[in-house]
Amino acid sequence: MINPISVALNADELIKMALREDISNEDVSTNAVMPEYRKGSVQLICKQDGIICGLEVFERTFKILDGRTWVKAYVKDGDEVKKGRLLADIVGDIRVLLSGERVALNYLQRMSGIATYTRQMVELLKGSGTKLLDTRKTTPNMRIFEKYAVKVGGGNNHRYNLSDGILLKDNHIGAAGSVTNAVYMAKQYAPFVRKIEIEVENIEQAREAAEAGADIIMLDNMSVEDMKEAVKIIAGRAQTECSGNVTRENIAKIIETGVDFVSSGALTHSAPILDLSLKNLHPVMEEE
Amino acid sequence: MINPISVALNADELIKMALREDISNEDVSTNAVMPEYRKGSVQLICKQDGIICGLEVFERTFKILDGRTWVKAYVKDGDEVKKGRLLADIVGDIRVLLSGERVALNYLQRMSGIATYTRQMVELLKGSGTKLLDTRKTTPNMRIFEKYAVKVGGGNNHRYNLSDGILLKDNHIGAAGSVTNAVYMAKQYAPFVRKIEIEVENIEQAREAAEAGADIIMLDNMSVEDMKEAVKIIAGRAQTECSGNVTRENIAKIIETGVDFVSSGALTHSAPILDLSLKNLHPVMEEE
Amino acid sequence: MINPISVALNADELIKMALREDISNEDVSTNAVMPEYRKGSVQLICKQDGIICGLEVFERTFKILDGRTWVKAYVKDGDEVKKGRLLADIVGDIRVLLSGERVALNYLQRMSGIATYTRQMVELLKGSGTKLLDTRKTTPNMRIFEKYAVKVGGGNNHRYNLSDGILLKDNHIGAAGSVTNAVYMAKQYAPFVRKIEIEVENIEQAREAAEAGADIIMLDNMSVEDMKEAVKIIAGRAQTECSGNVTRENIAKIIETGVDFVSSGALTHSAPILDLSLKNLHPVMEEE
Amino acid sequence: MINPISVALNADELIKMALREDISNEDVSTNAVMPEYRKGSVQLICKQDGIICGLEVFERTFKILDGRTWVKAYVKDGDEVKKGRLLADIVGDIRVLLSGERVALNYLQRMSGIATYTRQMVELLKGSGTKLLDTRKTTPNMRIFEKYAVKVGGGNNHRYNLSDGILLKDNHIGAAGSVTNAVYMAKQYAPFVRKIEIEVENIEQAREAAEAGADIIMLDNMSVEDMKEAVKIIAGRAQTECSGNVTRENIAKIIETGVDFVSSGALTHSAPILDLSLKNLHPVMEEE
Amino acid sequence: MINPISVALNADELIKMALREDISNEDVSTNAVMPEYRKGSVQLICKQDGIICGLEVFERTFKILDGRTWVKAYVKDGDEVKKGRLLADIVGDIRVLLSGERVALNYLQRMSGIATYTRQMVELLKGSGTKLLDTRKTTPNMRIFEKYAVKVGGGNNHRYNLSDGILLKDNHIGAAGSVTNAVYMAKQYAPFVRKIEIEVENIEQAREAAEAGADIIMLDNMSVEDMKEAVKIIAGRAQTECSGNVTRENIAKIIETGVDFVSSGALTHSAPILDLSLKNLHPVMEEE
Amino acid sequence: MINPISVALNADELIKMALREDISNEDVSTNAVMPEYRKGSVQLICKQDGIICGLEVFERTFKILDGRTWVKAYVKDGDEVKKGRLLADIVGDIRVLLSGERVALNYLQRMSGIATYTRQMVELLKGSGTKLLDTRKTTPNMRIFEKYAVKVGGGNNHRYNLSDGILLKDNHIGAAGSVTNAVYMAKQYAPFVRKIEIEVENIEQAREAAEAGADIIMLDNMSVEDMKEAVKIIAGRAQTECSGNVTRENIAKIIETGVDFVSSGALTHSAPILDLSLKNLHPVMEEE
Repeated sequence: MINPISVALNADELIKMALREDISNEDVSTNAVMPEYRKGSVQLICKQDGIICGLEVFERTFKILDGRTWVKAYVKDGDEVKKGRLLADIVGDIRVLLSGERVALNYLQRMSGIATYTRQMVELLKGSGTKLLDTRKTTPNMRIFEKYAVKVGGGNNHRYNLSDGILLKDNHIGAAGSVTNAVYMAKQYAPFVRKIEIEVENIEQAREAAEAGADIIMLDNMSVEDMKEAVKIIAGRAQTECSGNVTRENIAKIIETGVDFVSSGALTHSAPILDLSLKNLHPVMEEE
Repeated sequence: MINPISVALNADELIKMALREDISNEDVSTNAVMPEYRKGSVQLICKQDGIICGLEVFERTFKILDGRTWVKAYVKDGDEVKKGRLLADIVGDIRVLLSGERVALNYLQRMSGIATYTRQMVELLKGSGTKLLDTRKTTPNMRIFEKYAVKVGGGNNHRYNLSDGILLKDNHIGAAGSVTNAVYMAKQYAPFVRKIEIEVENIEQAREAAEAGADIIMLDNMSVEDMKEAVKIIAGRAQTECSGNVTRENIAKIIETGVDFVSSGALTHSAPILDLSLKNLHPVMEEE
Repeated sequence: MINPISVALNADELIKMALREDISNEDVSTNAVMPEYRKGSVQLICKQDGIICGLEVFERTFKILDGRTWVKAYVKDGDEVKKGRLLADIVGDIRVLLSGERVALNYLQRMSGIATYTRQMVELLKGSGTKLLDTRKTTPNMRIFEKYAVKVGGGNNHRYNLSDGILLKDNHIGAAGSVTNAVYMAKQYAPFVRKIEIEVENIEQAREAAEAGADIIMLDNMSVEDMKEAVKIIAGRAQTECSGNVTRENIAKIIETGVDFVSSGALTHSAPILDLSLKNLHPVMEEE
Repeated sequence: MINPISVALNADELIKMALREDISNEDVSTNAVMPEYRKGSVQLICKQDGIICGLEVFERTFKILDGRTWVKAYVKDGDEVKKGRLLADIVGDIRVLLSGERVALNYLQRMSGIATYTRQMVELLKGSGTKLLDTRKTTPNMRIFEKYAVKVGGGNNHRYNLSDGILLKDNHIGAAGSVTNAVYMAKQYAPFVRKIEIEVENIEQAREAAEAGADIIMLDNMSVEDMKEAVKIIAGRAQTECSGNVTRENIAKIIETGVDFVSSGALTHSAPILDLSLKNLHPVMEEE
Repeated sequence: MINPISVALNADELIKMALREDISNEDVSTNAVMPEYRKGSVQLICKQDGIICGLEVFERTFKILDGRTWVKAYVKDGDEVKKGRLLADIVGDIRVLLSGERVALNYLQRMSGIATYTRQMVELLKGSGTKLLDTRKTTPNMRIFEKYAVKVGGGNNHRYNLSDGILLKDNHIGAAGSVTNAVYMAKQYAPFVRKIEIEVENIEQAREAAEAGADIIMLDNMSVEDMKEAVKIIAGRAQTECSGNVTRENIAKIIETGVDFVSSGALTHSAPILDLSLKNLHPVMEEE
Repeated sequence: MINPISVALNADELIKMALREDISNEDVSTNAVMPEYRKGSVQLICKQDGIICGLEVFERTFKILDGRTWVKAYVKDGDEVKKGRLLADIVGDIRVLLSGERVALNYLQRMSGIATYTRQMVELLKGSGTKLLDTRKTTPNMRIFEKYAVKVGGGNNHRYNLSDGILLKDNHIGAAGSVTNAVYMAKQYAPFVRKIEIEVENIEQAREAAEAGADIIMLDNMSVEDMKEAVKIIAGRAQTECSGNVTRENIAKIIETGVDFVSSGALTHSAPILDLSLKNLHPVMEEE
């Protein structure tokens, strides 16, 4: 479940903006045929096998339009879902069901797509000691949703943003003068709380990083052989992360190198959506 | 070029939010190694063939951080770009180049991915009278960028949102009682400015819609044969749109039906990014 | 009833801003004499004959200050109201009743003024086939309220804003080179969803516009005779709109021309308010 | 001139919102015929005699869209303008001139309408010692513009909002128990900075208010005779304000009563706009 | 009790921002050990003698995170509290109690610190006719809370901000040319509602200010003897305020001068916090 | 220098809000005596010895009101300043100098107060290996300014907020069941990027924390003897932080314990301001 505090402080405002993006003044079609309140129900149907993710976000979308809307979900985030399955019933003002449908699905389909793709990658790592990480290659203004989807899919989150983690890349090393200097400057600047991660491109840099006391060493675009060697040299003095062009094809070989983590931007920037739809809208009787 | 007025009124605020998403208080890594202003330059390199799109958005990202940043682009939106090509030089405070990189690329890669995917679909329609449309299946808070990318890729934009177009779907028809009623109610509610589009699921509904005076008739998930028949019956009284599961494989057959438009959600919800990167950051001399 | 979704997404924020405009930190007068919660009731009284409009907005104003405020209305938007009539009782924390009064009335009086003025114009068109339209000459940040009031008064809404309708004016025609070019370019740019409206100033342009395939032709500041001739030439190929200095005096003659619509900026920019007031505030007993 | 600090802190955000109200994503008409930057000029023409007001707000509207737009005004706020006069040339990107026109005029026309109406009322008070005041009966989210327009027209501003002035009305007096109590409680609550104004409805209350030490006494809906008597009794111990149904017809008699101020809600809630328009848009050569 | 209308319109948004300042995406520590909802209770304990202030703000902080959180307070704003006393129980989702703790305490401790400090100063003025005033030397974006705390501590509020009070300082007098001119110009500009306060630095200016009709005269950094003389000269024609370096040591002498008010910036800019803490978090059974 | 990117993304909006807090519609005093633009200059004078901090924030305050204001500073953040020294000249529209003064000083005085207080504490730690840390006990909506001031004063920043650091307190340990469990759960939840800090209250917990693999161990409110013992037991396996009631009196003893860090909430919650003022405003000639 996405944390309710994060929803209250961070997600709700983004969802509201997305609704305003879709309804700049009114839903003309719905208002034309449905001038008054009428209670109804609609079904959330799965149209493709995968992992469902984002049900609270889906629900919030309708609740922001009308707090009395009610989503009765038959699955929870992280569950496997099969094509054809009824996932939830949504009950409320039919106008709200119609006007909120697209934004609610846009979130749910994208989050589920990421969770599904992540789960597939996680399966490939099963049995190894290597864990899957996401990156900051997320869609703008979607990070809170996309990083959550990675977690639901079984992946781990790398740093959330530039403020909560240190990752010294080639350009930082260049600015500092050397790997050793970069690690030293980072420890001076932020002696506390944060681990120091540094990106290296060859075995020599990896050795230097370990000696300089880096907490995590990212092996960037290195060959499998070089990574194997680097992991041996680092020898547990730092955690290791393999980054760059991780694919289904080469992942087995990457695991053999013994790196602690592999990171993949594709989880968030190129996962296709999971196909879902709202069907069978129908009026329901007021109970009172 | 994305319209500068839209940038000023709509895009800038979203870009600023995306930057805040990535820098909630400071870029720790950059500030650790780069305490002071230093002028530098970095190159935008293409790592995959495709269509470039979003250069102004890319530029605004850096300019919002520091108005003196300067992007010298060697291509323009809509150009074909090849792997390995230098697309632009970005010059400014090195801290700005480092801190803005990820957000700028996240926009540019996604927009270029959509433009690339759209262009491929448009190629398949070449020579026919059928035009390609996008949908509202966009990523939340990305619509202004994604719809623009479809246009740059050669596609056409369907309605922007629920406020600027009428599209009566099955649920609206159900609420109105019939296709005829739905069209009538829409004309009563909005007698002016807007065309009335209605979604039909079979030949009979298509005929009814044409007779009721719909301006556009969407043939939803109909077989190729039925669409052919429907187009014949509509006989130019309304524009026609084919929607639902348009793929590279079946598109040739769809064209034969003679529909005016095909719409595809995948353009915006499932296009993979175009791989781009910033390389070769180096200090430059101040000119003064 | 103003659409509750539009209220949630668009109106509420504007009402809150209006309240902050009136209460930048506290209502000094009320707080001086009323330090604690005390339940009370006040009456909304009509002081002038007219059409009431904006009751939900009136209610939201108090509810934003305190969700427990309760408005019991005896009329609904669009009803004719007479001087002296009790329109509603408002019950809640007396401080809320006092502090919200002015903003609530400022909305209600203005919206009712517009509905009243519109209704008078609509009466003059009765029996003719000509319909009344509003314009974009609304008060800044009041459009959602003012366009709704026009509708409640019996008028029709022209386009909501520059994004949801095409209207090619003299300056656009100038830029395009000719009426024909302008219509052509608009169809190229936006081949879908939107009707093309064009403003013409003489019979010749009207003819050209009809031949170019414009959907709506606005006859701008033309004489009654010329309009009559233009309508004849257009001959149903496009809808027609008469714009410019429509007054009570000349409206009968305009109807004779057979135009489909007349548009009037005065509906929103120069309608005087309808006089209403809150009276007879008194404490009420807590029921529990 | 409207204060530039108020523009920077308060007005700019409102103008931007009004522009977004009118351009939720793009100006379709302009973008269709004008795809690229082209420098042009347009004239602001007066179509009705009156007082011009709001020129900086008019200018800011264009500058928010594009900071390079240039308004060369031939008049200044408060000047009398005559029908047919050229008031200003606006030079910039033609797209900006077209897209900003309506919002810029909506502000300028409304502010000029209020200034014009106020000036007429001020003329009627000329020669007397009585000054004209506005009220809080302003259009929501327009107060900063409307109160400024009253000042430009020669009127004086009553309190800006509930936070910066004390005005004890009948309901406050009711809550306090008596005029004397209300004044006493206000002095206790806010012993400093603020004058205490109180609304009275008859001679007896006026006497009580003066004795209680009110700084200003508002004579609300009292007859001319009663007001004359009340002013005599107050005898300079407090300033006096006449409120309620002040009209052109009765204003001469009101002056005779010797009140210091008359206040009029109509200045801001019912003044018709001043008719202005942008004409003769034409391209201009780039100078450099 | 802080006014609920001010909370709804002004304070809530600031509290939400403060929460976002502390939780830019999630509370990692809490989410790590507490993945699900669990009802709990925690105690607010006083760790230092003083005056409690800000209990509603404290409560709102938790309620913004989760509206079901419940604060049962055993004291109210303005009460004296002793070290060790239980001030309140807070009941709700344990995650909310943990994540909101710091922001809630940051407000409560600061507001209580100001109220405590103010009360001490007020005690020193007891028995004299001199009242204590605060200033605009508040912490940015904390004014609504800090001015309220001064009031709770027994002090009086000087003007809230630059918009609701006139205070002509040396620089204004310089710009106007003289004390007399400055008062005259202020009366011309704002003839209504607002009292005119002017800051003077010597006896001669004080005399001039009284003669010019200032409503309040601030004696700025004058010696006790000069103030005594100034008060005598002013002779009740205006209220008097002593400003500048008021300390516990010299306050007795200041009282002797007979000034009506003393103002102190230290109340808000240098009061230390009152030490409070949340203790004894424990799960509680769900009652239903 | 405060990072310009943080200013652009985070600080500017807060400064603008603080200005709106102080100028809800206009600066009445200044506008009364200074109706037009007039160029002037004013001096920033030091009235108390200390460390200056916040000069860019001070400058931004004026620049937000008018971008042409110019601050010529003779010192930079972190410099020691002496009573009586001229710190800067500020040149611009006199109205801007007057209207921005208070907010600019409120920031500068508070930030300088914190830097001054921090520097004093840092001096006491000189020569030892112990470093000074701040806490999250900052003033709401001031954290970015206050944490920067601690750094300028020579202190180090603990975590910025709940999102960028893990700190398991007693309540988290209670929820997890034991110190060991809490550390384990935190490593599971966030296996990457973040160090795990845990708060312990006695020697036994310290030992358990070190064995569980905590990265930092906070010794909370422990006696000097116990801390000495705990540091010995931890034996470099984790960094150590002493927290709770660190004072000038006991700090020497704390150093002896050999802890790596001491943290102090007082740095941000109870530092008095540094007294500064703007003096000698005078008009200057326009140079052109």
